[in-house]
Amino acid sequence: MIITSLQNSKIKFLQKLLDKSRERKKNKLFTVEGIQENEFALNNNYKPKEFYVCESIYNGDLDLSSEVNYISSQVYQKVAFRGSTEGIIGVYHQKENILEEDLSENSTVLIVESVEKPGNLGAILRTCEAFSVDLVLICDERVDIYNPNVIRSSVGCVFSVPTLSLSKEECYEFCKKQNIKLYSTFMNEEYKSIWEVNYRTKSGLIFGTEHEGVSDFWKDKIEMNVLIPISGTVDSFNVSNAIAIGLYEVYRQKNVT
Amino acid sequence: MIITSLQNSKIKFLQKLLDKSRERKKNKLFTVEGIQENEFALNNNYKPKEFYVCESIYNGDLDLSSEVNYISSQVYQKVAFRGSTEGIIGVYHQKENILEEDLSENSTVLIVESVEKPGNLGAILRTCEAFSVDLVLICDERVDIYNPNVIRSSVGCVFSVPTLSLSKEECYEFCKKQNIKLYSTFMNEEYKSIWEVNYRTKSGLIFGTEHEGVSDFWKDKIEMNVLIPISGTVDSFNVSNAIAIGLYEVYRQKNVT
Repeated sequence: MIITSLQNSKIKFLQKLLDKSRERKKNKLFTVEGIQENEFALNNNYKPKEFYVCESIYNGDLDLSSEVNYISSQVYQKVAFRGSTEGIIGVYHQKENILEEDLSENSTVLIVESVEKPGNLGAILRTCEAFSVDLVLICDERVDIYNPNVIRSSVGCVFSVPTLSLSKEECYEFCKKQNIKLYSTFMNEEYKSIWEVNYRTKSGLIFGTEHEGVSDFWKDKIEMNVLIPISGTVDSFNVSNAIAIGLYEVYRQKNVT
Repeated sequence: MIITSLQNSKIKFLQKLLDKSRERKKNKLFTVEGIQENEFALNNNYKPKEFYVCESIYNGDLDLSSEVNYISSQVYQKVAFRGSTEGIIGVYHQKENILEEDLSENSTVLIVESVEKPGNLGAILRTCEAFSVDLVLICDERVDIYNPNVIRSSVGCVFSVPTLSLSKEECYEFCKKQNIKLYSTFMNEEYKSIWEVNYRTKSGLIFGTEHEGVSDFWKDKIEMNVLIPISGTVDSFNVSNAIAIGLYEVYRQKNVT
């Protein structure tokens, strides 16, 4: 049987998961569009609940071990998030927001506050994957990692980089317990150049939003304030670029012999 | 007199400049929307031809020394590129695509091939401003620097960073003449880690597109192939992040004592 109506209750539910963070959270589910993206999710042990396949478009060879619903190309075009031609949408169970083991002694942790743009969060996760960042703590999230645009712009890295979403307070408690040295990036405070600090121990870099910077909450909780020294007149990078540079510096120090 | 019709010939011309790279080039003009953006253009000695101001919205105090055309809020809303509420669009003369002086001995040059996304080019120019990159060579451009989205995402840096738009061949001739050591970033070639190379002389970093990488054209013309070493499984950064890291490393070397 092929689902041909947008009024079908399964399609209505799928649409909600695609559009609404609230629905994704309530149901502990999320959607993944595209062949490569589904491959990444499966390879990273995300459990599929079901798949929606448009047979006239789909030509992949994924292992579709869960329930497969066939949908008409008209329905697919309506629900597909992008003008994609890959013909497959998977529905997966979210992973529990817990950390199973303590972080090792030379771990690198990234703490990001209130990232708003899905494209930025995606690019940040991509950088974290490249440098094998051990954990990303997302404080006071404004966009959830299961947002379809985050998944797409992360090129699937959202599935392999460990993340926790929590409040600032919980984040601080966590870092204290894990004995993570915290480095903030306040723009208008005293600072050391990012390359002057030794990150070879368990380090956490905190980045704020582009507009508001790091919250004052962190002021009395940090080891040091660090900044990327610049010679130009513009006082901030695009947030994803600033994070890329910060994580590069930490990675460089940990790998240069 | 207030222009109230979209059929007005001046408004039609303005619209063409906003929408079309071809028209911008033919007329050697471009448009700048927003108060801060116009301020940056004026501060960087771009010569205004005229301004379009919607009096019911505009509340800036720019020095509008050229012809000012008043337009109705309806016309403004239609032509304004973003749902902005700043009420001003300036029309400026493009600067000539020439370099007046030879580059100094420790210059840093960025060479980017065929950037396609205006947002990426804008973010790249922002990074170049921060690190005082001496020149950006845009090879075989697919988006012009005067594209309204480039101007916006560069946060005005497009006006202060020196750029030249040229073909690969011209770019190479230029670099040879200026005695610039060229470093490519081929993904699948032998490489040195980006931090292992000394960039303290006149250096040019070449970055290709995300999908195609650096063109083979450069293969026999470079000093060295360099890459950002990664421990993850993803073999490329977002192009603007990769460039941010590369320029940071060059800047770090030139500034660490």
